[in-house]
Amino acid sequence: MKRIAILGSTGSIGRSTLSVAESYPDRFQIVTLAAGSNLEVAFEQALRWRPRVISMAAEVDADALRSRLKKEGLREIEVAHGAAGAVRVATHGDVDFVVSAIVGVAGLEATYEAVRAGKILGLANKECLVAAGELITAEARKQGKPLLPIDSEHNAVHQCLRGGRMDEVERVWLTASGGPFLNTAQSEFASITVEQALNHPTWKMGRRITIDSATLMNKGFEVIEACRLFHMPPGKVEVIVHPQSTIHSMVEFVDGSILAQFSVTDMRLPILYALTYPERIPSDMRFAVSDLRHLDFCPPDLKRFPCLRLAYEAAEAGGAKTVALNAADEVAVAAFLEGSIRFDEIPRIIEEVLTETNSGKLESIGQVLEADAEARRLALERVAEGKKLERPRATSFA
Amino acid sequence: MKRIAILGSTGSIGRSTLSVAESYPDRFQIVTLAAGSNLEVAFEQALRWRPRVISMAAEVDADALRSRLKKEGLREIEVAHGAAGAVRVATHGDVDFVVSAIVGVAGLEATYEAVRAGKILGLANKECLVAAGELITAEARKQGKPLLPIDSEHNAVHQCLRGGRMDEVERVWLTASGGPFLNTAQSEFASITVEQALNHPTWKMGRRITIDSATLMNKGFEVIEACRLFHMPPGKVEVIVHPQSTIHSMVEFVDGSILAQFSVTDMRLPILYALTYPERIPSDMRFAVSDLRHLDFCPPDLKRFPCLRLAYEAAEAGGAKTVALNAADEVAVAAFLEGSIRFDEIPRIIEEVLTETNSGKLESIGQVLEADAEARRLALERVAEGKKLERPRATSFA
Repeated sequence: MKRIAILGSTGSIGRSTLSVAESYPDRFQIVTLAAGSNLEVAFEQALRWRPRVISMAAEVDADALRSRLKKEGLREIEVAHGAAGAVRVATHGDVDFVVSAIVGVAGLEATYEAVRAGKILGLANKECLVAAGELITAEARKQGKPLLPIDSEHNAVHQCLRGGRMDEVERVWLTASGGPFLNTAQSEFASITVEQALNHPTWKMGRRITIDSATLMNKGFEVIEACRLFHMPPGKVEVIVHPQSTIHSMVEFVDGSILAQFSVTDMRLPILYALTYPERIPSDMRFAVSDLRHLDFCPPDLKRFPCLRLAYEAAEAGGAKTVALNAADEVAVAAFLEGSIRFDEIPRIIEEVLTETNSGKLESIGQVLEADAEARRLALERVAEGKKLERPRATSFA
Repeated sequence: MKRIAILGSTGSIGRSTLSVAESYPDRFQIVTLAAGSNLEVAFEQALRWRPRVISMAAEVDADALRSRLKKEGLREIEVAHGAAGAVRVATHGDVDFVVSAIVGVAGLEATYEAVRAGKILGLANKECLVAAGELITAEARKQGKPLLPIDSEHNAVHQCLRGGRMDEVERVWLTASGGPFLNTAQSEFASITVEQALNHPTWKMGRRITIDSATLMNKGFEVIEACRLFHMPPGKVEVIVHPQSTIHSMVEFVDGSILAQFSVTDMRLPILYALTYPERIPSDMRFAVSDLRHLDFCPPDLKRFPCLRLAYEAAEAGGAKTVALNAADEVAVAAFLEGSIRFDEIPRIIEEVLTETNSGKLESIGQVLEADAEARRLALERVAEGKKLERPRATSFA
């Protein structure tokens, strides 16, 4: 019986993890949950799973949840809140395995403390590796515990890596769908609308990650995550565009053999893999190999998608640069979504913030959060400057 | 230093193995060689590699080689011949690893004796597994030694299997190029000429294996080999047509994950993999992943390619049936190549021989060779009967 904590239980990955636990009641026990602000879902989860501890993001929600659980006679469920509550959930003594799926830097501290407490980590939070990857992976190595990626690309890499030793790896190949502008001419990038950018060809996702997929910054983050997870230099992590997203990623070994992984596109599969590793257990998530018809590939175009280049540069520099990359991107994407900047200004703003960020090594989560705040401030300045200049905008830009 | 014997040193796999040994002089030592009938090449190999023993197929060639080596002052090289010579090569006390690459049943005995002597086997000989697979794999299990496949499909499967345990495998997927008649209508199969059948779209190979690729019997043999090598029932070994032959094969695990292997099409790669397993060592055989463009797939058509169905049926039955499948196919293909039967009569003759073959278990290599001879006799009878009947032939059939 594996005893599980979920950081981000009301989000998409959190719910999928609970769905996996539901399918294998003899294997997985849900011990603690950290929810966000969705009180209704958190209440239902507490009723269904009877965790030892459940934490809400806000104190007011925690109070409300506590009184509702009292009415149900569930006084034994401890209700916590905030960053401290998430840490309590992540480090609970009865927990073996922590699923880290809180979006944004909010999940950083609890995730880091989980590793420090010797828990096995299933990682779905991008910021953990992009912003604090060096700290978290160093701590996991110190603890002798694996970091198991819960996203299709890195989970695929993890599976392919079983085909050899780490020192036998020549290169990691991350596949990218290419996003909605794979075939759009560079001259049209300035006039890309929010509506066009949100219209991803193959995935339905949140707004920020959809824009990050359109700029290929999402793939850039994944390059950085791969470098940290698998201790590879950025020069050994490559991206290849594969519009069908059937092959989730590949590993090239020194002898010239390449292993690729594919499966149905269902997040429950990497979750199940992480929860049961090094075992595999039967699932109903079958990919119909006999229905395979066409797989297409092409190299990414760093000219039209400078965000991917910026991510490589930040990965090379390390330290505060990757923190700034993530923070500046979040600000720039938000500004694009509210109509304050053009699509092609996203990489410009990020590049300017990166230029002003030094690449010093960060020694603590506190320093990471400081660097994050500083980069956000710089990025917001750039957005505001752009507004003041009132440059002419392309007419099709809403 | 791995000490190597090659059964079939003058053939294509044998020469590729020597080329690998040439590239890594610090890792591999050639200890013994069993050549075929190419005296000139055998002489050159003896001069270059100074084996302890070299064996020729025929006694007359062995005598000639012995006297030529004497003239060179190489009296210390022992020259043997025939089946006993091959066994001597395969079981030499200084040998760790035997590459089994003699074509046809001629390699059976030496290969079996190599396993019995506790050698690690690199298997490139199809007949060893199709005809005597149950005996050879049982002996290897008894010895606790791995059987390492040296052909692109099974080598790919071997690599993908590293992604999990054997009891976590749901299915093995062998890829097939589909051969020259992938898109030929069934009505045209009766009039396929020898020239058309020898014109394989992607591979240059020997005449029999080229015809076997055109009928998909070659893939059928590979299904049987996979069943034996990986202890899978035939129902768990599937074939998918993949005209580019980029992906060499795949393994589907119980959790729904699929691993696929690809690489350049160079037999030195599976040879190197087998010789160095469980290590991987750097090679110059790089597949340019960034040049990947299109991969196509479709299911095989058992109606137009009944040989594949026959192979599955023989695999299910086991014992003498797979011996007969191989023997009858060899006779039928030879008859087609000399113009005695039509292309679509190849499966008919094999099916008739299989019907007359009982599926008794074979307990020794001697029994395998007897079953082989009996099936050949039956197949030759069928060919002769067909000639007597003088049925009308399609006009385009040469």
